[in-house]
This record gives sequence, structure tokens and C-alpha cells, in this order.
Amino acid sequence: MPPHIFFTGADIDRADALRGDAAAVAALCGALSTRLLLLDGLDPVIGADGALAWGSMADAPDSAELALLGLVDGRAHFVPLLPPGRVLDPRSRRAWGIIPMLSPGDAALYGMARSMVDWHQRHRFCAACGGETVAARSGWQRDCTACKTPQFPRTDPVVIMLATFDGKALLGRQAGFPQGRYSSLAGFLEPGESIEEAVRRELAEEAGVVTGRVDYIASQPWPFPSQLMIGCLAEAESDAITLDTQELESAIWVTKAEVQAALAGDESRFGMPPPFAIAHSLLRYWSELPD
Amino acid sequence: MPPHIFFTGADIDRADALRGDAAAVAALCGALSTRLLLLDGLDPVIGADGALAWGSMADAPDSAELALLGLVDGRAHFVPLLPPGRVLDPRSRRAWGIIPMLSPGDAALYGMARSMVDWHQRHRFCAACGGETVAARSGWQRDCTACKTPQFPRTDPVVIMLATFDGKALLGRQAGFPQGRYSSLAGFLEPGESIEEAVRRELAEEAGVVTGRVDYIASQPWPFPSQLMIGCLAEAESDAITLDTQELESAIWVTKAEVQAALAGDESRFGMPPPFAIAHSLLRYWSELPD
Repeated sequence: MPPHIFFTGADIDRADALRGDAAAVAALCGALSTRLLLLDGLDPVIGADGALAWGSMADAPDSAELALLGLVDGRAHFVPLLPPGRVLDPRSRRAWGIIPMLSPGDAALYGMARSMVDWHQRHRFCAACGGETVAARSGWQRDCTACKTPQFPRTDPVVIMLATFDGKALLGRQAGFPQGRYSSLAGFLEPGESIEEAVRRELAEEAGVVTGRVDYIASQPWPFPSQLMIGCLAEAESDAITLDTQELESAIWVTKAEVQAALAGDESRFGMPPPFAIAHSLLRYWSELPD
Repeated sequence: MPPHIFFTGADIDRADALRGDAAAVAALCGALSTRLLLLDGLDPVIGADGALAWGSMADAPDSAELALLGLVDGRAHFVPLLPPGRVLDPRSRRAWGIIPMLSPGDAALYGMARSMVDWHQRHRFCAACGGETVAARSGWQRDCTACKTPQFPRTDPVVIMLATFDGKALLGRQAGFPQGRYSSLAGFLEPGESIEEAVRRELAEEAGVVTGRVDYIASQPWPFPSQLMIGCLAEAESDAITLDTQELESAIWVTKAEVQAALAGDESRFGMPPPFAIAHSLLRYWSELPD
């Protein structure tokens, strides 16, 4: 069994059937029990109890659009969308310092809300005609005011994988990583390829490593801004590396003992990716597999 | 081993490193060996040899934008994008009659090209500011001429799955299906959920079936317009069905023998989805599993 994957396990009923029911959603908006997620831009706000901070509908900014996250124990949970002019810094890593303090359920709910708010903010115009769009279906759609084309929240599949050979796994290091940090290779899946084909292409492109069999291990919704990380193992045909230096500064093969040492805090060989990244879970999982 | 998945296996080097190299791509455009995929709108054109029809760069419409599909045996392969005003019928199923005649490699290449051409056609404006966009990076990006925001080809993950219980698998029928046809349930993965969570949510929403363990089986790029189909099996806790009649007209549990009969042409119990759909491959795979 793979370990717990961070950003999964939100304890919420997404209540898909409610989204298109304007009367029911209006009633939920008026209900005293309804809760509103408080965000600072895209970043989490932590209450005195150390959990995600929630307000009531009275805390919604005037004329803010809302997205229905779902129901928790029958109580509706919304998140307010940002005002049109609000500029966000896509490089901000502020949330990364707060997320490790969240419970698994809160982290998953926050990730979902962040992806939704961010998607709305970056899709205020219609890709088909350039017209203005407005939120529809309780925030699960945006409709063009001009040509009526609907658009839906975007989720980008990314393959993230360990090539393995002779008891070792392949890790790479990008130039911008913290000192000593290595992680699994990854890349966006492209139109016209399966997960397995994307895994083999990325390993060949970035490290010149040719792989055969690919095994899916686990997946993760990644809210920066909205990827689906698809974690795999791939069997390499050799340990020869031809580095794409545009993508990676360095690539190394590590043993299970070296991963276990890094997990235990010994970073003399390499430093682990952060615990909330699926790369961390994937490395831990592989390092615990029998040889 | 799962059976061959249609729309995979394109025999092409996507040549990612070339895409951003304008001088190299210009040289490829001028090379006599370069081939241009001929499409009829979004539909395939079949040559006298029964394979996809290819032309030379001389066949490109004046001032057409091009997308680089990649290299086959060192020869560059492009597809011309459609002119801005060209309106496409998203409901057209014309290609469905032609696709079964293509070789697996041609089908995969066509699917990739179709998804790319369709994405460009529906993303001529910037979702961030409404400005006009132009193709960049050999067709693998569109850049806003006003705010410079880049956008990238979109691929939407969809979970498609068989719930299983007591030797039977769950199939559903939508109102628009051909007579007798049943297929696996499916739905778009949403922001904030893993593959496994999306599988469980969709089965609960559409059929009221509660599932535990989920196993990934295979994936497929689906070019209508550009989904990543993620095929799974999911263990149900019971065979009770509560149908969402907005989504499905009917749902049934079928045995492996009934699937084998349908594969052999006996459609007295139900008709199979078409062979190029991953639902077909998934059903065949499951029906051949030992009990």
C-alpha cells in the first residue's frame, strides 16, 4: 500500500447534483449553518485552533462570486472568488510554509479551494471569442457573456516517476532547488499520449533513460495551480544518463538505503522533497519495496 | 497485461527540444522530405494505400499556422492549423467511421494531430485578458499578443471504471447510446481529487455504488477533443444501485460470461462499446481475469 498522499482525503460531499439547482443553492447561501472559507488571496488563513479559518456568509465581500465546495455533515461550504482586478503572484511560496501545519483533511479542502479560486481568476475571458465570462453552476463553470461557450475547471495531468535499475532509482535536480535537494523527474502529459507513453518520453527527454514496463502507484491533486500528479515506477534498460541540461542540473541513481537515510534526516547523499509532495511518498514507497 | 489501447503507439519522436528552436524549425519547414498531414477540417483523409494521407509543405494553405508533430525516421511531420473563422461541429461523428480503418500507429498520430488542431481552434483568445493569441513554440503554445500570458494544450483527465462485485461488473447506458449499447461509467476528474477519489465519487454519484479499493489498469488519449481516459477497476461493497437518471437511463451488473458473449457478437444481454474505446479494452481485460 502506498503511504498517505497529501492533498487527498477531503471530508466533503461535493454535491454535484446541487450545483445546477439555483434555488437550492440560494437557500444554502441563506442558511445560518453555511460556512465560508477565509483565504488571504490564495493563501490559507489559520484560526486560533490551528485549523482552516471559516466565517459565515456575512464575511463574503460585496458582490463576490462564490464557489460551492460541497457539504460537510449537511452544512454547505463555500469559498468566495477574488475580485476581477486582484493580481496574484504565481511564484509565491507563502502557502508552502503554512500547509505542513494543516491536518490532512484541511490540506485537501484547502487545495481544492485554492485550485478553484485560482482557475476562476485566470479565466475571466472566453478562449473562443475573447468575451467576458461569468461564474455559473455554483462556481463549477464559467459562461461567456458574448458567445455563451462554457468553460470548465482545468486540471493538467503530470507524470512523475522513478526510473529503476538494478536496485537503484533515478533522481534529478533542477537549478532552482534548495541546496542538496533531489526529486523524481516529472513533466506534463501531452495530447495524444497515454500515461505510460508520457512517462517513457519524459525519462528519455530529460535523462536519456530508456524504460520499458511502467507501473502506476498513486496520484495526487497538486494545487499550484491545479495539476493531477500521476506517480509511477518505470523499469530502465540501463543506468546510462544523458542529461538535458536545460531541464536538470544533475541526475543521480540512489539506493533504497540512501533513500531511507535521507528520510531519517541524513542528507549527506541528497535531501528529500518535502513530505507533502507525491515525490516524497513515491520515494518512501519504493524504498520499502522488497528487492 | 491489458490489451492494446487504441490511439496509443504513435511511431513518432515528439522532438520537444526542437520546438523552441525557431531556426531549426524553419530549416525543417524548407526541407523537401518534410511531410504535412492532410485533414478535412478535423477529420482524417485516407490515401489510396488506406493510410493517413500526407502532403508536402506546398500543400499548406497560405499563411496557415503549423504545429510540429515530431520526427519519423528523421523526417519532420507537421499539421496545418485551421483558419480563424472555420466553424467546427463539435457533435460530428464523421471521424468515427474512418478511424477503425486506420492502423494503430496512424490512429495514434491522427488522434494527437486532431487534439492539437482542435485546441488551437478553440483557444484563439487569452483567458486572462481576452486579447488575441498566436501560435508559438512550433504549435505547442499560444501567446497572448496583449498581456503575453502563454497557454498550453489542454488535456482533461477522465476516470472510466468498472465497479465489480461478486464476479459481476457494473455497466451503464446513457439515453443517447445506440440501441442495446452499455459501457463503463466515466466522469471528469475535478480539482482537488486523486484518481481513486474521482472513481469513488463518480460511481457513488451516478449509480449510488459505494466502492473501496481502486486499481488502475490502463490509460488512453481520447481525441474528442482531448481527454486522458484513466481506466480502473473498483471493488463495490454491494450490488445495490441508486440510479442518477439525469446521467444514466439504466445500469446493470454483467458476468464475465456475458461480456465474453457480447465480445463474440451475441448482444442479447447488451452491446459492447466500440473497439477503439478504452471501455471495450477494460471490459475485455476484466472478463479474462481469473475469478
